Amino acid sequence: MKLEIAVLSGDGIGPEVTSQAVKAMEAIAHRFDHSFTFKDALVGAIAIEKTGNPLPDKTLQLCADTDAVLFGAIGDPKYDNNPSAPVRPEQGLLRLRKELGLYANIRPVKAYETLLDKSPLKRKIIEGTDISIYRELTGGIYFGEKRLNDEGTIASDLCEYSKEEIERISHLAFKAAQKRRKKLTLVDKANVLESSRLWRKVVTEIATEYPDVGLDFLFVDNAAMQMILNPSQFDVILTENMFGDIISDEASVIGGSIGLLASASVGDTCCMFEPIHGSYPQATGKGIANPIAAILSAAMLLEHFDLMDEANAIKEAVEKALELNITTPDLNSLNPLTTEKVGDFIYDYI
Amino acid sequence: MKLEIAVLSGDGIGPEVTSQAVKAMEAIAHRFDHSFTFKDALVGAIAIEKTGNPLPDKTLQLCADTDAVLFGAIGDPKYDNNPSAPVRPEQGLLRLRKELGLYANIRPVKAYETLLDKSPLKRKIIEGTDISIYRELTGGIYFGEKRLNDEGTIASDLCEYSKEEIERISHLAFKAAQKRRKKLTLVDKANVLESSRLWRKVVTEIATEYPDVGLDFLFVDNAAMQMILNPSQFDVILTENMFGDIISDEASVIGGSIGLLASASVGDTCCMFEPIHGSYPQATGKGIANPIAAILSAAMLLEHFDLMDEANAIKEAVEKALELNITTPDLNSLNPLTTEKVGDFIYDYI
Ligand SMILES: CC(C)[C@H](C(=O)O)[C@@H](O)C(=O)O
Ligand SMILES: CC(C)[C@H](C(=O)O)[C@@H](O)C(=O)O
Repeated sequence: MKLEIAVLSGDGIGPEVTSQAVKAMEAIAHRFDHSFTFKDALVGAIAIEKTGNPLPDKTLQLCADTDAVLFGAIGDPKYDNNPSAPVRPEQGLLRLRKELGLYANIRPVKAYETLLDKSPLKRKIIEGTDISIYRELTGGIYFGEKRLNDEGTIASDLCEYSKEEIERISHLAFKAAQKRRKKLTLVDKANVLESSRLWRKVVTEIATEYPDVGLDFLFVDNAAMQMILNPSQFDVILTENMFGDIISDEASVIGGSIGLLASASVGDTCCMFEPIHGSYPQATGKGIANPIAAILSAAMLLEHFDLMDEANAIKEAVEKALELNITTPDLNSLNPLTTEKVGDFIYDYI
Repeated sequence: MKLEIAVLSGDGIGPEVTSQAVKAMEAIAHRFDHSFTFKDALVGAIAIEKTGNPLPDKTLQLCADTDAVLFGAIGDPKYDNNPSAPVRPEQGLLRLRKELGLYANIRPVKAYETLLDKSPLKRKIIEGTDISIYRELTGGIYFGEKRLNDEGTIASDLCEYSKEEIERISHLAFKAAQKRRKKLTLVDKANVLESSRLWRKVVTEIATEYPDVGLDFLFVDNAAMQMILNPSQFDVILTENMFGDIISDEASVIGGSIGLLASASVGDTCCMFEPIHGSYPQATGKGIANPIAAILSAAMLLEHFDLMDEANAIKEAVEKALELNITTPDLNSLNPLTTEKVGDFIYDYI
C-alpha cells in the first residue's frame, strides 16, 4: 500500500516522540513492503514563532492532500500562563480538527498486565479494563459562540449540538461496540442540560438500529466516579466534546502512564493520529519522553487503513518492550532508557 | 444558641439518613444546652407526587424563614430514565439553590486514616489528602439560557459568568485557604473557554488581596488526572459549577466511601447542608444507607454558626464509630450495622 502522511510534530517533546513513530512505520514499510512517504509541516507554538499563525495555510493544505496526519503535541508555557493572548497554539489544533472535519476522537484505555502495579489504582480495581472512548470533537462548547461584553465583565460560551452532529459519531461508536463487548454507555448531564437531553434522545433512536448492542446512560459526575471505582464495567463510552476531554484524561491514569495512550481523530474524509499526552515542555530534549503513545498512534493509523497485521506487529513490539522493561523513566526508575533507545528497540523488533 | 432548621429529607434514603443527622443535633443541643427546632418540608420526587411541584412555595418560604436547611437527597429512577419529563425532582434542587442564593458549594474531601485501605486508590497515593472544594453553584451552564428549536433537532445551553459571580465565591475560597494550607488552585479550561478566561482574570486580580495565599491554575482535564495521580497536592480548589460537579464527585471516591462526604451550600443570607450522595433508591428502607455523610453535614451546619466545640463533638463521635467499625455495609462487610444503629452509637457517644 502507498500512503502519504503529513507529520505535524509540533512543540515540546512532540518532535522527539513523533520521530520514533515515523521510525516504527518505516520498519513496517520495510517488513511488509509498503511505501509510506512522510511530509513535515508546522503547527502550534513553533508555527506561531515562524509564521505568526498556529496553523499555517500550507500545513492545512498538506493535511487535506495527504492520506493521514501524524500529530505530535502542541503547547508552550509562554502561552499557557496567558490564555488571553490573541494567538495561542491550541487554536491551531482546534482549527485543524474543525477544518479537517475530525468529528470523532477515539481513545482506547487498557490496563496492560505488565504495568498493573504502576497505576495509582489498586490492581483488583483495574484488572481487565479495556475501554474505547468516543469523544465528539468538532462541536459543543469548544466551537459555540464565545462572547465578552465591552466592559470585560460578562463572558459566555455556547454549548450547541445538532441531531446530525450526534448521529454521525454515534454510528461509529455503535459499530465499534458491535466489534467489541457490545455495550455502549452514553455519558451526559441530561438532568441539567438541554443539549444532553438531545444526545439522549438521538442516541436512543439510533440504538434501535443496533439491537445487539446494550445501551446505558450515566451522568457525567457519576461517570467520573465510576471510572475510578469500577473501570472494567465500561466497553464503549460515547460522549460530547467537553465531557470527553475530562473523562478521557481521567481514564488515562488507569494504565499507569499517560505516556502509553494513543488516539485517533477521524472524519468522513480525513484522519489524524496522536498521543494523548501534551507537549511536556519540562522534558524537551532530555530524551526522557515516552515514545510509546506516539508509536501506538502509528498503529492506530495502520488499523484505520485495515493494515491489521502491520498494526499488530507494532503492538507486539510495544508489549515486548514493556515486558522486558525497555522503557523510559516514567515506567522505569531502576534502569531507564532514552526515548530514542526505546524507539530503536521497537524498530529492530519489527 | 437558638436555631430553627428546615429539614428537607427528600427521596430514597434521604429521610433515613437525615433523621440520624437530626438525632445527632438533638444530642448536641442536650449536651451543650442549645435549643434547636426542626421543621419538615417537602422537596423532590415526593413533593411532585404530593403537590405536583418539586419545590412547593411552602417549602421555599420555610427555608427562607429558618436559620439553616438540612437537606437529604432527591431523585427517583422514574424521572432519571426520562430526563425530558416536564417536571423533575432536580428542578426543585436547582431552584432552591438559586432562590436561596446559595452560590458556594463547599465540599471537604479527606482520607480518614482508618479507611485508607477501602479506597480504590493506593494508600501511598491518598495518604494525607485534605481538600476543600469550592464549587460555584448558582451560575454557569446550569442556569444559562437553554434552547431547543421547534423541530427538536438543535439544542443548546449557555455557560455565562459575570465578574460579580466569580468574585463573591472567590473571596470565600481565598479566606478558607488563609485558614488552611494557604494554597488555592483554580480549575478551568481557559485554553478554550471565554468564561474560563474571565475566571482566570478575576481570580488573579482578587489574589492580590490575599498575598499570603499561593494561587495556581489547572486545566480541568489535567485536574481530573491530578486528582487521581496526586490528590494530596491540593488544598483549596476553586471552580465553576459544571467542573465542580464532575471534579468533586471524582474526588469523593478518595475517602473510600461516598457515604462519608458532607457539603455546605452557602450564600449571603441562607445556608444549606447535605450529604453529597444521592437518593440511592435501591437501598431505600433497607437500613443499609450510611448516615455519616448526613451527620457530618450537621457538623458543617454547627461550624457555620461558629459552634466549633459542638461540631468537633460530632466529628469525634464519627471518628470513633469508624475506628470501632460501627459502620454500615458499604464500609463493613463482616459485621455491618444498620443506619439507625450507627446513628444510635453516635447519639450515645455525644
Ligand atoms: C489542548 C486542548 C485544547 C485539547 C482539548 O481540550 O481538546 C486537549 O486537552 C485534548 O484533549 O486534545
Ligand atoms: C442532582 C444534580 C442536579 C446535582 C448537580 O449536578 O448539581 C448533583 O449532581 C449535585 O452535585 O448536587
